Amino acid sequence: MKKILITGISGFVGGHFVKYMSTHHNDLEIHGISRSEPAWDFVDIPRQLINGRYFHKADLNDITKIKSLIHEIQPDYIIHLAAQSSVSESWKTPVLSFLNNTNIFLNIIDTVRLNDNSARVLSIGSSEQYGIVSENDLPISEGRVQCPENPYAVARVAQEQLARIYAKGYDLNICCTRSFNHCGPGQTDRFVVSAIVKQFVKVAQGIQKPIINIGNGTIVRDFVDVHDVIEAYYLLLTKGKKGEVYNICSGQGLTIKEIVVLLSELLNIHVDIHEDQSKIRPIDNPQIIGSYKKIQYELGWEPRTSFVQSLHSMYQYWDGRVRAELKTYS
Amino acid sequence: MKKILITGISGFVGGHFVKYMSTHHNDLEIHGISRSEPAWDFVDIPRQLINGRYFHKADLNDITKIKSLIHEIQPDYIIHLAAQSSVSESWKTPVLSFLNNTNIFLNIIDTVRLNDNSARVLSIGSSEQYGIVSENDLPISEGRVQCPENPYAVARVAQEQLARIYAKGYDLNICCTRSFNHCGPGQTDRFVVSAIVKQFVKVAQGIQKPIINIGNGTIVRDFVDVHDVIEAYYLLLTKGKKGEVYNICSGQGLTIKEIVVLLSELLNIHVDIHEDQSKIRPIDNPQIIGSYKKIQYELGWEPRTSFVQSLHSMYQYWDGRVRAELKTYS
Repeated sequence: MKKILITGISGFVGGHFVKYMSTHHNDLEIHGISRSEPAWDFVDIPRQLINGRYFHKADLNDITKIKSLIHEIQPDYIIHLAAQSSVSESWKTPVLSFLNNTNIFLNIIDTVRLNDNSARVLSIGSSEQYGIVSENDLPISEGRVQCPENPYAVARVAQEQLARIYAKGYDLNICCTRSFNHCGPGQTDRFVVSAIVKQFVKVAQGIQKPIINIGNGTIVRDFVDVHDVIEAYYLLLTKGKKGEVYNICSGQGLTIKEIVVLLSELLNIHVDIHEDQSKIRPIDNPQIIGSYKKIQYELGWEPRTSFVQSLHSMYQYWDGRVRAELKTYS
Repeated sequence: MKKILITGISGFVGGHFVKYMSTHHNDLEIHGISRSEPAWDFVDIPRQLINGRYFHKADLNDITKIKSLIHEIQPDYIIHLAAQSSVSESWKTPVLSFLNNTNIFLNIIDTVRLNDNSARVLSIGSSEQYGIVSENDLPISEGRVQCPENPYAVARVAQEQLARIYAKGYDLNICCTRSFNHCGPGQTDRFVVSAIVKQFVKVAQGIQKPIINIGNGTIVRDFVDVHDVIEAYYLLLTKGKKGEVYNICSGQGLTIKEIVVLLSELLNIHVDIHEDQSKIRPIDNPQIIGSYKKIQYELGWEPRTSFVQSLHSMYQYWDGRVRAELKTYS
């Protein structure tokens, strides 16, 4: 039985990926690495992970441990989901952001190189790599020059450049994504759509005044549902071209304010918007909208979940979770 | 008295920079950080460094130590020379190359940010950042898109991008170089010109057969004398524009084979050339030649030392050193 190693398995995307693999591709033995054990409240945990057989607790900065783990597991596939993927966190702690993006990735691929170089690796990157783009450049395709504008984006550009060097110089079998903003049930409220939906849930439950707190409301982002992201990851991991980079996006842009208005209409709840100045970042990209033509042309992938569907599933998630939290504390 | 902190002070460029500062600008108190104490055999060591007063032994990866040192010194200027600057080493140990380029730099600038953000910082980069360029792009100016082609180059690109983010996002007073290949007395024989000159010295002294071992003999590089480099560094540290990047180069290109032929003619020693296949790198840039128009226009710098002068001073250095080594071992 072939083996897949999922780094950052305990996270939001990790949970959805495990669920997808268990449902659609249970011909692979799933191994996971994370600093903390999975505590997903949005997917079922496969039995083997529950009894700890295939879960490996480790910090990817500990290269000695990672070397011994990969040597022991001998994975056929590695999907590297582990990341510190918050832009705002990267402005607060840039050193940690760099270590927990670029360095952990380099530790993984260098271990693969020194092991037997045969594992197929999927490197997850970010739309933040593009930086500030002009209207004419939208939607952004993969050929555009990258000009990262925050510490997180620099770390992701370095990660992708290392992936390219390892593919070209060491013949590592590696493929890269530039993933646009995700949304979906289970995402923490450190990310904007999740934070907004959670606030609407609280307003609806009568435990928050009808004021939605956001950062910069005018920035445009391209949100793609996590279920679509996961399908793209599986396709790229198994069929993406070695050394190539693929956008994963919805192709649609929305301002943060538009998301609030949309939810307000869908839920029929009137709210005011409060732009929190402390959430405004030193540099912010005004708009990021991607083109998914490359992955569509090569692998037939396209987003299937509408943004409204994503909002619905996120609303259900937060509704249950906030009720459960209330019960715990009452 | 204002203070300057020189990271990597014990290295080749560090030694030349200390000599230059002691001779031309002794209005600054010199502090140095390095993992090993200076053991220069090509410059005199200033008294204060000898008695250890201004030398601080530390690994720049140790961020706790670096924070306390910078807080204690409170430097007005920081020139960050510490680096693992060998391309071939970076192919052998990419993880170490990354840590000892990008991460140590990030540790320094993040400490400056968290200190009081006022120190003026010079970030040293590399011509390797440009990657493979076409004939039409020569000589390379700073506006060219960077496409790093080895682990060292990726680390340097990330360093410069972090410098740009810190200047723009955190208002750090930082200026960057892209320094082309150096040469000069005191450079180790891990670098190509030094390795060739040392071999000629050995041939001339009758302790090596007249065969010069090189890697890829056809690659073209732009070699700039370390004394010229040092002058450019001082100018940029004191007068370079914040957030800007400057090439430091000779504007001339030579193949590695041409260097051997030139030395053969200058010394009137006939040699054969042996291209060592083990020294050929996984990816190599065919030619790198820079344009120094920007720094010339803005600050009046231009290279003043001819390549032949560099070879002479390097020959003298290696001649003395090889004789001294022979004496030690005989």
